Amino acid sequence: MNDHDVTAVYRYIDENMELYLGWLMEAVRQPSVSMYNAGMGEMASICARFLEDKLGLKAEMIETGGSPYIYAHLDEGAKDTLAFYNHYDVMPAEPLEEWESPPFEPVVRDGRLWGRGVADNKGSMFSRICAVHACKQVYGKLPVNLKFFYDGEEEIGSPHLDDFVRANGGLLKCDGFFWEGGSRDLERGRPHITLGVKGICKIELSCRTAGRDLHSANAAIVANPFWRLVWALASMKNEKEEILIDGYTDDIVPLSDKERKIIHDMSFDEQASLKSYGIGSFLNGERGNSLKERLVNSPTININGFRGPSNDAETKTVLPGAASVFLDLRLAAGQTPERALKKIREHLDAKGFKDIEVKLKSSYEPFRTSCESTLMRAAAESAREIYGMEPNIILNDWGSSGVCSVCGRLDIPCIMIGVMNEDSREHAPNENIYLEDYNCAMKMIASIITKLPDM
Amino acid sequence: MNDHDVTAVYRYIDENMELYLGWLMEAVRQPSVSMYNAGMGEMASICARFLEDKLGLKAEMIETGGSPYIYAHLDEGAKDTLAFYNHYDVMPAEPLEEWESPPFEPVVRDGRLWGRGVADNKGSMFSRICAVHACKQVYGKLPVNLKFFYDGEEEIGSPHLDDFVRANGGLLKCDGFFWEGGSRDLERGRPHITLGVKGICKIELSCRTAGRDLHSANAAIVANPFWRLVWALASMKNEKEEILIDGYTDDIVPLSDKERKIIHDMSFDEQASLKSYGIGSFLNGERGNSLKERLVNSPTININGFRGPSNDAETKTVLPGAASVFLDLRLAAGQTPERALKKIREHLDAKGFKDIEVKLKSSYEPFRTSCESTLMRAAAESAREIYGMEPNIILNDWGSSGVCSVCGRLDIPCIMIGVMNEDSREHAPNENIYLEDYNCAMKMIASIITKLPDM
Repeated sequence: MNDHDVTAVYRYIDENMELYLGWLMEAVRQPSVSMYNAGMGEMASICARFLEDKLGLKAEMIETGGSPYIYAHLDEGAKDTLAFYNHYDVMPAEPLEEWESPPFEPVVRDGRLWGRGVADNKGSMFSRICAVHACKQVYGKLPVNLKFFYDGEEEIGSPHLDDFVRANGGLLKCDGFFWEGGSRDLERGRPHITLGVKGICKIELSCRTAGRDLHSANAAIVANPFWRLVWALASMKNEKEEILIDGYTDDIVPLSDKERKIIHDMSFDEQASLKSYGIGSFLNGERGNSLKERLVNSPTININGFRGPSNDAETKTVLPGAASVFLDLRLAAGQTPERALKKIREHLDAKGFKDIEVKLKSSYEPFRTSCESTLMRAAAESAREIYGMEPNIILNDWGSSGVCSVCGRLDIPCIMIGVMNEDSREHAPNENIYLEDYNCAMKMIASIITKLPDM
Repeated sequence: MNDHDVTAVYRYIDENMELYLGWLMEAVRQPSVSMYNAGMGEMASICARFLEDKLGLKAEMIETGGSPYIYAHLDEGAKDTLAFYNHYDVMPAEPLEEWESPPFEPVVRDGRLWGRGVADNKGSMFSRICAVHACKQVYGKLPVNLKFFYDGEEEIGSPHLDDFVRANGGLLKCDGFFWEGGSRDLERGRPHITLGVKGICKIELSCRTAGRDLHSANAAIVANPFWRLVWALASMKNEKEEILIDGYTDDIVPLSDKERKIIHDMSFDEQASLKSYGIGSFLNGERGNSLKERLVNSPTININGFRGPSNDAETKTVLPGAASVFLDLRLAAGQTPERALKKIREHLDAKGFKDIEVKLKSSYEPFRTSCESTLMRAAAESAREIYGMEPNIILNDWGSSGVCSVCGRLDIPCIMIGVMNEDSREHAPNENIYLEDYNCAMKMIASIITKLPDM
C-alpha cells in the first residue's frame, strides 16, 4: 500500500467539478470535424495548451501527413507507466435541425451535458486531464508515470496511426493503456470495463461477366455477375449461419474457462435489445450465455450491400456487365485480416469462383487484453468502490477500432473505461453524457493511478 | 391468283419515295414523349389526320385514361381483314449532346434517316400508311380489309392496353396482325420475320429482419436480410444455370421439329455478339443450335439489382433492417406470369423462406404465332421477292412486349416486320433507319396484302 490518499483526490474532484466542467465545455465549443478538416489546428492547440498550462507538460505535435498527433510525457521516475489514447476530432454534427441545442454550444440540462463530442470523446479526454490535474494538486508527485497520446483522425479511420506506431512506437511503450470509449449499462447501471475489440475487414467482391451492361433478354445466353456473387456468397455461409470457408475459424483463440465466465457474467439486456432492434428473436433463436458468446467471440460475414450498374434496378431490366458486393467481416480474437482474406481467396478458387475479385478496403485487427492483467484488476476494484457495484466486464467489444495498431503491436494491456452511457448518442444528434459519469470517470483514473503500483 | 398487279404498286412506291419520306419526317418533327406527356395530343392529331386525309378513313380517338388509342377501319367488303399495331409515342431523346443532329429535326445522311422515333416506331407506322396509300392509288379497292390501331403509351408499358382490349376487343378482331418492330441482320442482311415474344415478369423479392438498420457489429446476433435473399436466390437457380423451382418449366410448350428447324435456320452472328458484348464465350459455353434454342426458348431468372438501406454500402458497415432484390423473368411460350409467380411462392415456402415477400411489378405474357400460319407464309414469300433472300425467321424474340394482350387474348396470328436494322439505335441517341429499308417495308406490306387472299 502506498501512502497516497485517494479520497482526498475524490474530494478535490467534487469540489472542482464546476472548473472541470468548464474545461470540457471550452473544448466542446471548438468544432473539430476531421471529415471536413474543420477547426483541427485550433483544437490541437487547445489540447496542447491544457496539457501545458494545467499539467505542466511539454506537448509535442507530431506530423504524419494529416492532423498532427499530440504527445506528452509526465515522468515521475515511477516504476510503472500508464498511457491515455484519446482523439480530438469529432463526427460532423449534421443533421443540425435534430439537435435540441446547438452542437457546438455545450449546455447542461437534466443532469447531462449536451454537445457534439461530449461523449465521443472529449468527455473521456478531459476526464483524464482533470483526474491527473486533481492527483497532482493533492499528491504533488504521482505514483506512476503517464503518457498522453492524442489522435486527430480517429473519426476518419486513423489513416496515419500505423505509420505513427512504426515510426514512433518507442514513445508509446508503457505498462497499460486507457483507450477511448467506455460506457455504462442502460439506466446508468453497471460501468463497463472493456478489454478489447473484434477486428474488422471491409472487402469488396466484384465480378465482371461482360464488357458493358446488356438488355436483360440476353440473360438466356450471357452470364450475370450478380448470380455469380450470389452463388459465391451462398458457398461461404449457410442458412444455419455456419461459415463454410475451410480453415476460416481455425485461428480463433478458444475461450478459457475464466473468459467464458466473464462472458456469462456480462450483463446484456435481451428484452431491451429485441425491442430496440424491432426483432422477435435473435439469430438462430439464441439466448442467454450462448447469445453473449456469439456477440463477443463469433466472427461475422455481414453483407452491407450490392452495387450494380445503376440505381434504377427497380425499373430497368438490365443484365449488368459488372457487379459488386460489400462485406464487413468482424474477426474474433486470434483471426487476422490477412489470414481471413487468404482463406476467402482460397475458398473462391476452390469453389470455381476464380473470376471473383477480392479487394480489401480497410481493416483493423482484433485485440484483447488478458482478463488477468493488473490493469484490469485495478480497474475492477476501483469500479466497485466508485460506482458501488460490480463492473460489467466485456471481454471484447463487438465493434472494432484501431487499438490493435498500438496495443497489439506493442503488446500493451489496455482497457476502455469512460464517460458514456447507452443513451449517449455518439455520432448522432443530441450527444450527451451525465455529469455524474464525468465525475466518476475522473475518480476511476485517479483510483487506478493510485492503486496500480501496489498490485 | 387475284388480278392485282403488285409490281405497279412497287413502282408507285419508288416514284413517290420523296413524298412518303416527307410524311414520315413530318411525324418525326412532332415530339411525342409519353414519359413526359410531351406533345401526345398533337401527335395523335397528326396520326388521325394522315389516316383521314391520305387514306380517307374515319379515325376514332378512344380514351382509356391516358393518351387516347386511335382506331380506323378500311372496310373493302373483303373476306380477310388484317390489322396494324403501332404506337405514336417515342422514348425521351436524352442525352441530347450525344446526337449528331437534333432528334426532332429529321435529316437524311449517308442513305439513312436520323431522328428520334424513325425506327421505333414512326418509320414502321408510316411505311404501312404509305403502303396502303400506294395500294389504293393503284388498286382502287384493296383485296383485304384493314384496321389501324395506334397506342400512345407503348414506351411507358401500355398501362391501358388490357383495359382497352377488354372493353373494345371486338374492334380488333381480324385474321392477322402486323405488330410493331421488325429488323434486318447486321450489314443489312436477311430481313427478320418475328413470330412472337417471350413473356416477362418483373418481381421484387423483399425481406425484413429488423425494425431498423443496425450497426453491423450486431451481425453476430441479428439476421441480415441480404443473406436471406442470397440463400433464397441460390435455392432457385444453380451454377449450371438450372432452374431448381419445382414445376417451373413444366408449362413450356415443347418445340416441334419444324420450330426447331426454324431456330436452327435463324441467323445469329455469334462472333459479332461476343465482340459487341465484350465476352469470351456464351453462358455455359453454348454455341450453335443449342445457343439459339436457349435464346428463343429458355426462361431466364435475371437479377437486375439489389436495394438496401442506402447507397453507402461501399463505406458504411451497416446491418440492414430490410432489403430487396429485383428480378426479371423472361418466360418461354406456354408459361404465364401468374403460374411463374405461384411456383416461386411455393418454392420459397417449401425452402423455408416464408418471410420473403414476392411482389409483382409488371408483366407481359409470352406469345407465339404458328410458324405455319398463312400470314407467316405470305410474309416469307414476299420477303424472298423484295429482299432477294431467305428471311430470317425468329420463332419468338427474346425480348417482350404487349402483343399477347391483343393477339394472345383474341387468338390472332401476328408477325413483326419493319424498317429497323441492328444499328438503328432505338431508345438511344442517333436513332436511324435506311431509306431503302423504309422502301422495302412498304413493299412488304403491299405484297402481303396482295398475296394473302390467294393463300
